[in-house]
Amino acid sequence: MSALNLDGIIGYPVTPFTADGERVAVDRLAALVERLVADGCHAVAPLGSTGESAYLDEHEWCEAAETSIAAVAGRVPTVVGIAELTTRSAVRRAQFAERAGASAVMVLPLSYWRLDEREIVRHYTEVAGAVDIEVMIYNNPATAGVDLSPELMVSLVEKIENVTMVKESSGDLGRMHRLFQLTGGELPFYNGSNPLALAALMAGAAGWCTAAPCLIPGATLELHRAVRAGDFETAFKVFQQQLAVLQFIVRGGLPTTVKAGLALRGFDAGGPRRPLLPLDEERTAELSSLLAAVDAGRP
Amino acid sequence: MSALNLDGIIGYPVTPFTADGERVAVDRLAALVERLVADGCHAVAPLGSTGESAYLDEHEWCEAAETSIAAVAGRVPTVVGIAELTTRSAVRRAQFAERAGASAVMVLPLSYWRLDEREIVRHYTEVAGAVDIEVMIYNNPATAGVDLSPELMVSLVEKIENVTMVKESSGDLGRMHRLFQLTGGELPFYNGSNPLALAALMAGAAGWCTAAPCLIPGATLELHRAVRAGDFETAFKVFQQQLAVLQFIVRGGLPTTVKAGLALRGFDAGGPRRPLLPLDEERTAELSSLLAAVDAGRP
Amino acid sequence: MSALNLDGIIGYPVTPFTADGERVAVDRLAALVERLVADGCHAVAPLGSTGESAYLDEHEWCEAAETSIAAVAGRVPTVVGIAELTTRSAVRRAQFAERAGASAVMVLPLSYWRLDEREIVRHYTEVAGAVDIEVMIYNNPATAGVDLSPELMVSLVEKIENVTMVKESSGDLGRMHRLFQLTGGELPFYNGSNPLALAALMAGAAGWCTAAPCLIPGATLELHRAVRAGDFETAFKVFQQQLAVLQFIVRGGLPTTVKAGLALRGFDAGGPRRPLLPLDEERTAELSSLLAAVDAGRP
Amino acid sequence: MSALNLDGIIGYPVTPFTADGERVAVDRLAALVERLVADGCHAVAPLGSTGESAYLDEHEWCEAAETSIAAVAGRVPTVVGIAELTTRSAVRRAQFAERAGASAVMVLPLSYWRLDEREIVRHYTEVAGAVDIEVMIYNNPATAGVDLSPELMVSLVEKIENVTMVKESSGDLGRMHRLFQLTGGELPFYNGSNPLALAALMAGAAGWCTAAPCLIPGATLELHRAVRAGDFETAFKVFQQQLAVLQFIVRGGLPTTVKAGLALRGFDAGGPRRPLLPLDEERTAELSSLLAAVDAGRP
Repeated sequence: MSALNLDGIIGYPVTPFTADGERVAVDRLAALVERLVADGCHAVAPLGSTGESAYLDEHEWCEAAETSIAAVAGRVPTVVGIAELTTRSAVRRAQFAERAGASAVMVLPLSYWRLDEREIVRHYTEVAGAVDIEVMIYNNPATAGVDLSPELMVSLVEKIENVTMVKESSGDLGRMHRLFQLTGGELPFYNGSNPLALAALMAGAAGWCTAAPCLIPGATLELHRAVRAGDFETAFKVFQQQLAVLQFIVRGGLPTTVKAGLALRGFDAGGPRRPLLPLDEERTAELSSLLAAVDAGRP
Repeated sequence: MSALNLDGIIGYPVTPFTADGERVAVDRLAALVERLVADGCHAVAPLGSTGESAYLDEHEWCEAAETSIAAVAGRVPTVVGIAELTTRSAVRRAQFAERAGASAVMVLPLSYWRLDEREIVRHYTEVAGAVDIEVMIYNNPATAGVDLSPELMVSLVEKIENVTMVKESSGDLGRMHRLFQLTGGELPFYNGSNPLALAALMAGAAGWCTAAPCLIPGATLELHRAVRAGDFETAFKVFQQQLAVLQFIVRGGLPTTVKAGLALRGFDAGGPRRPLLPLDEERTAELSSLLAAVDAGRP
Repeated sequence: MSALNLDGIIGYPVTPFTADGERVAVDRLAALVERLVADGCHAVAPLGSTGESAYLDEHEWCEAAETSIAAVAGRVPTVVGIAELTTRSAVRRAQFAERAGASAVMVLPLSYWRLDEREIVRHYTEVAGAVDIEVMIYNNPATAGVDLSPELMVSLVEKIENVTMVKESSGDLGRMHRLFQLTGGELPFYNGSNPLALAALMAGAAGWCTAAPCLIPGATLELHRAVRAGDFETAFKVFQQQLAVLQFIVRGGLPTTVKAGLALRGFDAGGPRRPLLPLDEERTAELSSLLAAVDAGRP
Repeated sequence: MSALNLDGIIGYPVTPFTADGERVAVDRLAALVERLVADGCHAVAPLGSTGESAYLDEHEWCEAAETSIAAVAGRVPTVVGIAELTTRSAVRRAQFAERAGASAVMVLPLSYWRLDEREIVRHYTEVAGAVDIEVMIYNNPATAGVDLSPELMVSLVEKIENVTMVKESSGDLGRMHRLFQLTGGELPFYNGSNPLALAALMAGAAGWCTAAPCLIPGATLELHRAVRAGDFETAFKVFQQQLAVLQFIVRGGLPTTVKAGLALRGFDAGGPRRPLLPLDEERTAELSSLLAAVDAGRP
């Protein structure tokens, strides 16, 4: 069981880089995290897929983790993302995050050579065993190349004491129904697929893991508030209003599009790390008009 | 055009680790490379998928590259594998390999966030632009999460001067026909899909990139010799004799199975790096009998 | 625009066969349709995927259509399913259905050779052009082998006057959000993926196309009623109660599992048509206990 | 074991339709079959995927079978294709083909509802049990929606006496290696993937099932002759010469492209049956120049 009781909007900052793309712009990262907290996010999750976790070297990763945790300053929980190919590298990062004061780590098992269940179980056992903080399983087959079934994730939660939460980003709502069903609603699961934001909350998700608050915090938080208040009409309306932005940022890759959107919002976060390239002009213009529509409350 | 004129069996060593799995066992790596050369491989390719390139930190990777190049000692070409998520990391490794004396680098563009063609072109442009040695494009969608079409690969070869070769590991023979067709047979391409070994050579592949010589060098080299000699009957026979081994090592993951096979051959290369786990007993026994069949010349 | 204003639960009967499997058991079909109407379905859709439409010869299909329409007797709309490989065969069935008094036809474009957009547009143009009744587009890539994007379906609705509705069975909730978004909520779309029943209704689906009322009509209708009444708490509870049954009948193939369930309910509908085989004993026992749980109101 | 000893080029005629598309143009079909035999095909296979078998009603199918068998007149074996959703319909066609004098039937198990192994085994058992002639298993997942593994196909051959041959059209050469391996080369298998023509023959295929002889009989037969003669150099050259045509007719759908090609060759076979549409002008021009290149012996 999770003692964190994470519930609500878990905001994912990008990791801003310096102009030459060579270093993490720690001041910009701190400022962005501050914004997410100030805007009302119920938790902050640096170094997720949005945060280009897998693209950072170990020093940068530690710097970004430390900076984010310090900027949150305990006002809300901080969940630090780990996306590593090797177990030892994931263990080191988890231990660093714990020492730096993270509330939990979110662990994505990257695959190069296909992992079997035995290997996945061992990976989570070693990483979780190396820390005392809680561990969130992260399933994101499209980026990680490995797909964790609801059954496997529930068995990990049952076997390993501090594995207590699941983030589901496969985009298949049925997986969330299945997680609820397998655990009688007892396992807190979080939705990581932006276009399923409303449906997932209605399906029992404890929260929504999203980079959208970097760009449209009001709409994102209002969706959650409305659902929790049982005001489905408003929830549906604000979901429709932001859906085009959610679809856009997912389709174009979160670091690429959210960094472009932050620039449109007047916040310089640099570009994504190569080989990722900045959003081109045409699509930046499209994003600009989609953000304007959300600001104007247009569907 | 490639000045290397690579032709034949390109042997892929695993990267042996120390007993605790924490360091590269450089002496074992040197010994294995020595064996591959002594057994007659026409080139050696350390740090490929077999060599767990993506699982090594930068220091280990450099150590393995240097060790392998030194062990080859110029007797045959050395092609060093690079499988990195970021362009800058791939550039650094390519430059190190060049300084260390590599004949060429083989570059696999790993993906976390999906790469578009613009990003792939930029990645190869920057990596190839950073060195003077030749660059082999490596297409392996199953491990890398990105699939390079024959058309895209040919356009990279046309655009970037020192991109001169292609390694195709998608498992689709039609892709090799297409590479031949698009370039009138002028582009040297290499087959990385072991079960297609014979068909690829018959389809015009300049060579076969394979870890099989770690275990069955005689059979592997004989297949190539027979094809080049136009002795198709022998080629077919020796292909059938080794096919079960090729299927086995591919199905179980190359580092996992080849390290198990090396232990069966009396060569200690340690286990694969976690989360990869050593081959279990049952499958090790199966591999043992498959190797015995090849040794006995049984189909 | 649809003049039918279909809203709610669209019940899908199986097509019962005689004991030898050779003929449609028209009296059983009439009895089953009568039950669906009596139980409160808002419409009835014979000859859907559940009704083994594609497995019937033309004479049988016409008999089943006629029987169903007569049994409904105008009390609710009747939507007749057409799943044909050739346009001319689909046209003949649509014309027969119209003459027999169908309210609408639901058209699934089966593919053997892959269809391009031009061919799909032509198919719908010819079938819809041959009748005056409304046409529902049916997207079910898993059974039909062709996947219609939301954009294509909306363009068909815009181009062809009596194409007025869409049934989405891809299992991807995002497609329904997209249909809503592309048409400002004006296009009536119906969910054909049972495990998405609740989410789809919350996402604006005008109805739920389902064979579940053959087995658990009370739970199915109560779900729809609760959603329409804005009683989300009840909707969620009754959805959870029936979810295991919905998952089961989808996983095992609807004709196979629903016919087994009907037998458990005391209604003889025979087996599915070969090569489909009746549900085996073990899974029939599993279905029996799942149905008992729904009857008892257990989650 | 097969007593037919089919070896070589098995030519697949399209099924010509009358100008209105409503009937089989039996005289044209007879003329096309005559051409295939006269041009040297080692067997003829009417009513394959190329022959739009699945798009014909039962009367048309029987007419086409009878016409083809009569036109072959016993000069070479005739293998008649059956692609039906229901077992009973497949049984009736197999029995008709036997009575009409077919040498064998080739059976493709179409799927609408997914078939499990039990159902596939039953289908072949019933169809083969209804006739005394030999049955060829046909695996073509792209058109049929069901994929038969080499292991399953070999088990069917072992279980059912008159199931004696396999046609593999998955496009995966490894499947053919596997068929050879599982049966020690004893099971005659035939390649149905045109771009694998050369590789399959080198891999032990007993023959090549292809519509290409409708358009380029000389090149097709020469490829087979050269392989059988052990003249690999010629085989490779003539394969390269015809590869672009093979890729083109596969990519555009065989009935569509081969009918367009026959028109270019001066043979009127009508268009494919709707929803399939005739090849558009631009691609017809492309095909024309590809055929001209083959005629000129250009690569």
